[in-house]
Amino acid sequence: MARTIIGVMGRGEGASEEETRAAFELGALIAREGWALLTGGRSAGVMDAAARGAKSEGGLTLGVLPGETAAGASDALDIAILTGLGQARNNVNVLTSRVVFSCGVGAGTASEIALALKAKRSVILLCASVEARAFFQSLDADRVFVAETPREAVEIARRLLRD
Amino acid sequence: MARTIIGVMGRGEGASEEETRAAFELGALIAREGWALLTGGRSAGVMDAAARGAKSEGGLTLGVLPGETAAGASDALDIAILTGLGQARNNVNVLTSRVVFSCGVGAGTASEIALALKAKRSVILLCASVEARAFFQSLDADRVFVAETPREAVEIARRLLRD
Amino acid sequence: MARTIIGVMGRGEGASEEETRAAFELGALIAREGWALLTGGRSAGVMDAAARGAKSEGGLTLGVLPGETAAGASDALDIAILTGLGQARNNVNVLTSRVVFSCGVGAGTASEIALALKAKRSVILLCASVEARAFFQSLDADRVFVAETPREAVEIARRLLRD
Amino acid sequence: MARTIIGVMGRGEGASEEETRAAFELGALIAREGWALLTGGRSAGVMDAAARGAKSEGGLTLGVLPGETAAGASDALDIAILTGLGQARNNVNVLTSRVVFSCGVGAGTASEIALALKAKRSVILLCASVEARAFFQSLDADRVFVAETPREAVEIARRLLRD
Repeated sequence: MARTIIGVMGRGEGASEEETRAAFELGALIAREGWALLTGGRSAGVMDAAARGAKSEGGLTLGVLPGETAAGASDALDIAILTGLGQARNNVNVLTSRVVFSCGVGAGTASEIALALKAKRSVILLCASVEARAFFQSLDADRVFVAETPREAVEIARRLLRD
Repeated sequence: MARTIIGVMGRGEGASEEETRAAFELGALIAREGWALLTGGRSAGVMDAAARGAKSEGGLTLGVLPGETAAGASDALDIAILTGLGQARNNVNVLTSRVVFSCGVGAGTASEIALALKAKRSVILLCASVEARAFFQSLDADRVFVAETPREAVEIARRLLRD
Repeated sequence: MARTIIGVMGRGEGASEEETRAAFELGALIAREGWALLTGGRSAGVMDAAARGAKSEGGLTLGVLPGETAAGASDALDIAILTGLGQARNNVNVLTSRVVFSCGVGAGTASEIALALKAKRSVILLCASVEARAFFQSLDADRVFVAETPREAVEIARRLLRD
Repeated sequence: MARTIIGVMGRGEGASEEETRAAFELGALIAREGWALLTGGRSAGVMDAAARGAKSEGGLTLGVLPGETAAGASDALDIAILTGLGQARNNVNVLTSRVVFSCGVGAGTASEIALALKAKRSVILLCASVEARAFFQSLDADRVFVAETPREAVEIARRLLRD
């Protein structure tokens, strides 16, 4: 049976230290649950930190990359999916993830949260601004959750997967 | 030389009457400017209203459809692009549009606004909620504009295209 | 009602003079039928020649480009669809075309012919090698046609659209 | 470091018994080499047989599915990538694979072989008809290999990966 895949989305280059720290911890906790981690795959910001976190606990890491080559891919990936789709790959990320976490919200992340909601995936927001929380909760109050810590975020995901 | 293409995004089934009325007027004004109109192509809500508005002024209408067939396409399309990409087609919509208008914001629309900003396209919001305005302006203050009327929205687009 | 769209596929850089001459004539004949022309959109080889042919007869020309920008697009396009999908855009080309013509067969063209057959579109081969004819006819004898001239190719398409 | 991923392509429903037998053996041999297996992911024909073969030797199996849900996915997948891209996912399959094997050639498989060659991936043909061999070798003599047995096919791949 296929592994449960959980996505962690967030900024690449523009990620804050708080966001990457949360992403690393999230990756580690995901691995400890036995879930496979999916990210946008690049060697930057939240994507890279989450993958490194998962590897620190021996997890399985997938990266769904925008380009046609592995250039710029995180070293912490077990599986590099080369899509050549540019940002259209964001929809692949969220369809493939049972639950989507975000650590901070850049434009790419915002598209992933919105596409996740369109695809009826639940989204758990970490390190989100007041504006991001208010907007996404106004968009779909039933599927958008806000967590204060990676541990709380994983707790919510565990509950969602049980239902 | 290729035609200037302007996108109008918004909800399908869930669109309000205010949103479809604005979309129809927007379509008509876009056609009067000599711009080609691009929508998500379906026979519903904002997509359909904008295309009918543009046709009422003899404009050229393109629809970039999610499915593999023309089933469910608006009757008001001149050109139906069948992508078979599902919501990944949202990125095609915004890359192809020189400027993106939104009439109201559902989850699909939100993904298009975010993808537009990621691709450095300007976005002009009509009928947006307080939360949507605040969030997208916090995401990219330089590229997000708010208009009160279709006429004002087209005026902003004209200025952006001139620059 | 949406226009009938006919695709012309073929090599970009590697196209032979025979292939581009046939593509230009095909484009012109497609325009004279009142059909809209679809190509891969680039300013090279068969794509460019077909678009120029269609414009020489006042036709409507669409290009479905692999990149995220209009760089490298043919000057003879009315409508430039920027997909950012790379070669995955080949499936958009064939889904959108009611009938697919090929002028010569490179690797990209071969993928489009195969995707067209997968999508149950008919394909009319011009300037095809003995190997290409034999292979594609072995793949789907009912949907693969061979024409000796652009005029004959258009005649076959007219018959297919009538049925 | 990311795992070496090897693709096995072939018909779903229309696959012959010879093709599925070869695919099962190929999957098993790929797993024994320590490579991860990639298929189109569906529970049919060559895709399913290759995945089951790889699991019989404890390999890691990825399926890149055309749909938005896991409905119709092979039970033998460890990782199900849900693309929602329809046949446009074929380009993801070949970009992600270091080497592409085919077991028999349907229309979908033919598109994958052609897209692989376009992306400069080597392709090793098993159970290919005379017409398929002749056509693909005429398309790219340097990158198309013909093997008589799964064992020979894997031997060729090993040599290609060493270079």
